[in-house]
Amino acid sequence: MLVGALDIGGTKTIAGLIDGQGRIVAQRRFATDTHDLYAHLHACAAALRALMRDNGSAERLGVTMPGMVDEARGVLLNAAFAGWRDVDVRAALAQQTGLAHIRVENDVNACALAEQRLGHGRRYRHFIWMTVSTGVGGAVVADGRLLRGAWHCAGEVGHIKVEYAQPERCPCGGFGCLEAQGSGSAITRMTREAAATQPAFAARLAEAGLPQDGIGCAMLARAGDAAALAVYHRAAVYLGRGIAACVNVLNPQAVVLGGGVTGAFDLLYPELLKTVEMSIIGELRGVEIMKTALGYEAALLGAAALAKPPPAEA
Amino acid sequence: MLVGALDIGGTKTIAGLIDGQGRIVAQRRFATDTHDLYAHLHACAAALRALMRDNGSAERLGVTMPGMVDEARGVLLNAAFAGWRDVDVRAALAQQTGLAHIRVENDVNACALAEQRLGHGRRYRHFIWMTVSTGVGGAVVADGRLLRGAWHCAGEVGHIKVEYAQPERCPCGGFGCLEAQGSGSAITRMTREAAATQPAFAARLAEAGLPQDGIGCAMLARAGDAAALAVYHRAAVYLGRGIAACVNVLNPQAVVLGGGVTGAFDLLYPELLKTVEMSIIGELRGVEIMKTALGYEAALLGAAALAKPPPAEA
Repeated sequence: MLVGALDIGGTKTIAGLIDGQGRIVAQRRFATDTHDLYAHLHACAAALRALMRDNGSAERLGVTMPGMVDEARGVLLNAAFAGWRDVDVRAALAQQTGLAHIRVENDVNACALAEQRLGHGRRYRHFIWMTVSTGVGGAVVADGRLLRGAWHCAGEVGHIKVEYAQPERCPCGGFGCLEAQGSGSAITRMTREAAATQPAFAARLAEAGLPQDGIGCAMLARAGDAAALAVYHRAAVYLGRGIAACVNVLNPQAVVLGGGVTGAFDLLYPELLKTVEMSIIGELRGVEIMKTALGYEAALLGAAALAKPPPAEA
Repeated sequence: MLVGALDIGGTKTIAGLIDGQGRIVAQRRFATDTHDLYAHLHACAAALRALMRDNGSAERLGVTMPGMVDEARGVLLNAAFAGWRDVDVRAALAQQTGLAHIRVENDVNACALAEQRLGHGRRYRHFIWMTVSTGVGGAVVADGRLLRGAWHCAGEVGHIKVEYAQPERCPCGGFGCLEAQGSGSAITRMTREAAATQPAFAARLAEAGLPQDGIGCAMLARAGDAAALAVYHRAAVYLGRGIAACVNVLNPQAVVLGGGVTGAFDLLYPELLKTVEMSIIGELRGVEIMKTALGYEAALLGAAALAKPPPAEA
């Protein structure tokens, strides 16, 4: 039996059909229309209908959204970057797809659920998921259950403070947040700062035809460039500080990292682990830190996992 | 029906009998024998038998311990300060009291359970308990359930880092932990430092006949002394930083503070609240921060609450 999955991101959307083994049978990708969410949901429904016409029908649909979701009601409460507020996503999609069983979830929570059911999370009852990308998001699985918090906001690990002395401003308005210090955009900012203050580093990037961003910096770092390594070293310390705070509070078995920055997991891991171990109490040092077992489609797989709750939660 | 309660602390122990309304009917206090836990459990059992002889018998007993507890087995795993390890507290007390229903719990967790059943926690499904005393401990209630973590260590909020630039050494071996920066012992250390560097402050303490510790400092702070207020201000910033990290990760409705330092809650609250609100994302700002509704006997009441699980957990 196929299930439908929609991963609605800030810039792109993926509609897919997933089979019982968690394999993506078919998918369509298209830009997210941030100006008009209702029009976009209409386009999503059309994409799903087309996929079902060509590949077979589904009865259930899971949807992930880049914002705060009241999953019990299927309502998107708030996605500040797009100005979306209080949209009954479940009702809109039910009307337009005819599907009766629709679950809507925050995209980071969905990644954690996908990891739990299909990835490393199968081995852990207690783990933290972190998406390290342009920003930093997180989700907490404790005793096998996703923690949602009082107002659907648990897991805001990106706003744990990791720098007090010389903090950077965060898009949230605060200072020194993990998102401002250790995210993909922070790595790009540090790369540009290093290029501005160290002309030889800028010249090495230019010679190699590499951009002044996290990817360019990673390429030089892998070739042993000290300035490039220093950028990743600093990001790893900040990520380690944020992770350590979570580990001290939650005592998880593992921390699983996803998102684009995990393409440089090898560059981050040694310093990150060292920082975490220095920053947690001894009893917690068995915690494992690893890269997601799922790929780029983690959120889409998460959407499908939502649509098919396991027997215990059904 | 009376229930028995034992609050075994690092320096003193309270044995008590608690009635169905959560009132302490009778209690005995005595020093904790840290050299020999088995001998101490023997003394605890004798105290309980004496209390029951005078006040009526109990069938159930709750016990709190200052260390890591495997509550499912009733075993104290580790209390580093006393060198206690792997002691089957439940079996020892069952043998010596004849009581069949004994539950053993970490003392900070027990305070959170007492707050949940008898205090502010009755209004909240999601809250964080923090004991701010010589050290700083914590416990997390999420969705009405106490989080234990993978190895019985969830809630180690005292070891969240709150100072990176000029960190103090913590008893855990780390640097910059909340316990090292914002606990009762940190307040006493800052009071002594202020007295050493500001002779006028030392003179004011001496004139008023006040000790160079947190209590002396609080007395001067309440009289408006700027140096004394600065000490509490600094502790409040550190407490606020630690609390904010927890709030970002857990999205609780409330944070409830207990422990001796909450005697100075009025001095800490304004700066603490300001720091928390600056350090969490906007969606979380409804979180309330308050002093425990329970008094000095919070852990003893917690022990009794353990002994009488509510119907849902029974």
